[in-house]
Amino acid sequence: MKNPTASILVIGDEILSGRTRESNMHFLAIELSKVGIDLKEVRIVRDYKPAIISAVRTLSASFDFVFTSGGIGPTHDDITSECMAEAFNLPIDINEDARNKLEDYYRGLGKKLNSARLRMARIPKGAKLIKNSVSVAPGFSIENVHVMAGVPKVFQAMVSSILKSLKSGTPTLSKTLKLFLAEGEIAALLEKLSSEYPKLSVGSYPFVKSGKFGVNIVVRGDNSKLIDQFINNLEAKIEELNGSN
Amino acid sequence: MKNPTASILVIGDEILSGRTRESNMHFLAIELSKVGIDLKEVRIVRDYKPAIISAVRTLSASFDFVFTSGGIGPTHDDITSECMAEAFNLPIDINEDARNKLEDYYRGLGKKLNSARLRMARIPKGAKLIKNSVSVAPGFSIENVHVMAGVPKVFQAMVSSILKSLKSGTPTLSKTLKLFLAEGEIAALLEKLSSEYPKLSVGSYPFVKSGKFGVNIVVRGDNSKLIDQFINNLEAKIEELNGSN
Repeated sequence: MKNPTASILVIGDEILSGRTRESNMHFLAIELSKVGIDLKEVRIVRDYKPAIISAVRTLSASFDFVFTSGGIGPTHDDITSECMAEAFNLPIDINEDARNKLEDYYRGLGKKLNSARLRMARIPKGAKLIKNSVSVAPGFSIENVHVMAGVPKVFQAMVSSILKSLKSGTPTLSKTLKLFLAEGEIAALLEKLSSEYPKLSVGSYPFVKSGKFGVNIVVRGDNSKLIDQFINNLEAKIEELNGSN
Repeated sequence: MKNPTASILVIGDEILSGRTRESNMHFLAIELSKVGIDLKEVRIVRDYKPAIISAVRTLSASFDFVFTSGGIGPTHDDITSECMAEAFNLPIDINEDARNKLEDYYRGLGKKLNSARLRMARIPKGAKLIKNSVSVAPGFSIENVHVMAGVPKVFQAMVSSILKSLKSGTPTLSKTLKLFLAEGEIAALLEKLSSEYPKLSVGSYPFVKSGKFGVNIVVRGDNSKLIDQFINNLEAKIEELNGSN
């Protein structure tokens, strides 16, 4: 059976301006690969309604899950909730459950639930809240879209709360062979060997270290024996090649 | 006059699997903001022809520039050049200029320009080469799309070689006010003040540090006096607010 597919939609001018280095995507990519959900695409869009709405509609129609990050706080530039309502043609209003939680929280701090904070309880009708252990402001899920905060600690808490409830697949196994040679040396034998293992996905990722080129060969699949066999075969063929030089 | 717009297309399974942390996007975002090219969208897609072709067509039609990263090396999983040719309905063949450079380079190393390495000279017809100081394998430009390597050092060298030749705009100036308070405290006054400065873009970016919430208010625009005025005004209003508590 095929693994479920996913995409990530990051919302925020601060990423595109270079001010903030995006980190939620890398975190979630690793978490998804652990549970066998295949991340197929990431989009980063600015705080601009038409861009957000169009991206979420396309991604929601193309993949089993969409995870969004950013734009659900109390300030004027937080427009994600409104965009989600529009994208799915849903009304948006104060969610009573979310309002109660926010009220309790601010009462405990001796602060008022002012109108800006109450904005965080405005959630598309029918959405299911995503609770988290760090912040009282909830994320929410509509259809196959899971809307989460941009602040990394809050995002991570929301991910751990939501992932348990999603249909997952078979985690992809992978092994890496690090070689200190230029990938052009072994490209031909790598291509031939890869074609003999259609059940494996073989990637070749060059790097530069101390002015020298090297390459990581990453072999991915769901059968660890097959992966080991490929790596052993590849090592043997590289030895042969070196012997003949 | 409006600044030119741009998008980035990152190509590579290794980013989506979480194995590699993407870094070219952040680098280029900063470089673009220095020269007044507005980055509007980023997409990360896997090593899969239909995904790459569809993304590059859409982005090329939507923005003034597209910058791509990844997939132009000598191995079987490097399919970016072919995809670019298909996306623009161009034939693809060995580029003689690129072939000569590769031949010279490998001769200098006492190595052969084997068929895998020659693959790096396969470039869509009519594309212009992007030279770089780190690697002999060229990137290339077709129409408004600039195709570059995924290895960060090579990518960066290509960016510095290409950016000089592009039409640029007015660099966006920005100032940040870091506040150790919850953004909900000031959301209302921030919204009101922002609406009085339509020429500025004001973002509010919360963070969590040592268990406490804080917020960075980022003010962006092309007039530094106006930005300073906004920040001074905001600080005065926050003081008033604190005084009244």
